[in-house]
Amino acid sequence: MSVRLPSPDDIYDAGARIAPHAVLTPVLRHASLDAMVGAQLHFKCENLQRGGAFKFRGACNAVWSLSDEEVKGGVVTHSSGNHGNALAMAAATRGITAHVIVPEGAVRAKVEAIEQAGATLHRCAPSIAAREAKAAEIQQATGAVMVHPYADTRVMAGQGTLVLELLRQTEGLDAIITPIGGGGLQAGCAIAAHSISPTIAMYGAEPSGASDAAQSLARGARIEHFTPDTICDGLRALIGEPNLQALHEHRVDIITVSDEETIAAMKLLWQTLKLVVEVSSATVFAAVLKQRERFAGHRVGLVLTGGNVDIDALPW
Amino acid sequence: MSVRLPSPDDIYDAGARIAPHAVLTPVLRHASLDAMVGAQLHFKCENLQRGGAFKFRGACNAVWSLSDEEVKGGVVTHSSGNHGNALAMAAATRGITAHVIVPEGAVRAKVEAIEQAGATLHRCAPSIAAREAKAAEIQQATGAVMVHPYADTRVMAGQGTLVLELLRQTEGLDAIITPIGGGGLQAGCAIAAHSISPTIAMYGAEPSGASDAAQSLARGARIEHFTPDTICDGLRALIGEPNLQALHEHRVDIITVSDEETIAAMKLLWQTLKLVVEVSSATVFAAVLKQRERFAGHRVGLVLTGGNVDIDALPW
Repeated sequence: MSVRLPSPDDIYDAGARIAPHAVLTPVLRHASLDAMVGAQLHFKCENLQRGGAFKFRGACNAVWSLSDEEVKGGVVTHSSGNHGNALAMAAATRGITAHVIVPEGAVRAKVEAIEQAGATLHRCAPSIAAREAKAAEIQQATGAVMVHPYADTRVMAGQGTLVLELLRQTEGLDAIITPIGGGGLQAGCAIAAHSISPTIAMYGAEPSGASDAAQSLARGARIEHFTPDTICDGLRALIGEPNLQALHEHRVDIITVSDEETIAAMKLLWQTLKLVVEVSSATVFAAVLKQRERFAGHRVGLVLTGGNVDIDALPW
Repeated sequence: MSVRLPSPDDIYDAGARIAPHAVLTPVLRHASLDAMVGAQLHFKCENLQRGGAFKFRGACNAVWSLSDEEVKGGVVTHSSGNHGNALAMAAATRGITAHVIVPEGAVRAKVEAIEQAGATLHRCAPSIAAREAKAAEIQQATGAVMVHPYADTRVMAGQGTLVLELLRQTEGLDAIITPIGGGGLQAGCAIAAHSISPTIAMYGAEPSGASDAAQSLARGARIEHFTPDTICDGLRALIGEPNLQALHEHRVDIITVSDEETIAAMKLLWQTLKLVVEVSSATVFAAVLKQRERFAGHRVGLVLTGGNVDIDALPW
């Protein structure tokens, strides 16, 4: 898959394109969490984004980037949940069909949300090969345009818009941390951040059971075969090729965290920040808790990516 | 107990007094909740206030209203949790002692928070008489100033400041809903709202198992003996005397909701708004869900009073 990284202009254009549809999410602070870690924490609340996750930004940018001719057959994607939901909602804003391929075993709350958003659901086996085969089949049958969850220039550009907001909402950030799954979020964010403030340190938080990005960066080449084993259902995707290149170019440092550390961080965010965040989102706070000395005294932006949780099945 | 209601000026003064210490809490909206009820809902997020509840406003105003001479012996209160925590935090901002009387059976998470905030805890039996006897004993022994959770002019004035913010953060509200416990919050809010916009309709949401305010308003006199039976631990207090008078003068309409309705509303807020709110807070949303026709097409401010929940013991 050959996909171009977005330019800063792509991200600025995306910001204008999605503004009528997306929520300008708040940045929250909390005195006792700051005191706990000895840093100034600025939480960018994408759990309060439309559909409950940052994914709406990329999906919305993709849907509105297409020509009237291109969107006639609708759009299609495979997704463990949040991107599928986001594409369904974005398609609805343009009145087109969204085909969403959902692997067996996906989080129930997420699948329900996709159905409610009006998408046409297609089930497949929980393997990357099965997802991609099903997507190709639907594209052929319907003419739908593929909108990949992270290996897509328009999607990465859309995700990057959250950093444009974050930098307007805060002053003098020293660092920004995002979770790392497929890497589209981090790629978009790093490009956006460094186009405005080249000295901001970019960090990725990755589950130790899905640390293909950390390992790929360490050996200088993308790991292509890896079976993720983590509770973070949003972070099981393998890092995309251009995304890995973006991580390298923007000197993104990966901090790996165990599922236990992430669950403890998630619980603390619920109890203290009073936000419903999903487990994948909590990796960023787990990373700060784990490496306090690295962030001590710094102004740190933490991207809370989503809040789509099955609240009848909490992990603690 | 003879307590004067706050004047609008008391509330404006309180706003200036607490500004250096309190959080200007955000007002959140949600497109799908608006669509669900057919109204424009503006959620004032006091769960994001310091200490996780609006109570910090009143406690902070009370603590900073006292003279240096008056605060020498510290402050004392009896509280099922949030006010005690708030007073402990407020006392810490002035470097004085807070004595907090906690009835047996109070929510564990709230008692832990009070201890962490540095208060001196005193246990008593879970009756109003036992709380008041213990408070009198501590006042005599230490010279501490009583700061009552709701029958206190300074506390009511502090609570009213949230409406000053809400009216600056929104435009053209038709109605505001708060939960009703002791009535200090509603009294402060009604006085503040009508000093700025006399036509705003004020509503109180009260658990049907603690509907002493609704019954007192209906019969025109305060019910003095009533045993509350509701899961809403923050709303079990009897309505105060001047508070009842304020409800009458400001034509506050009470909507009673069952615990089942409140729990369903709470779950919906967690799932959709992505906020951790405590069960007492959810009464306001339960009231809108129950009487949709009353609010249809209106701009409604809902005060989400707190987020101090034992997340290991959720009510669903």
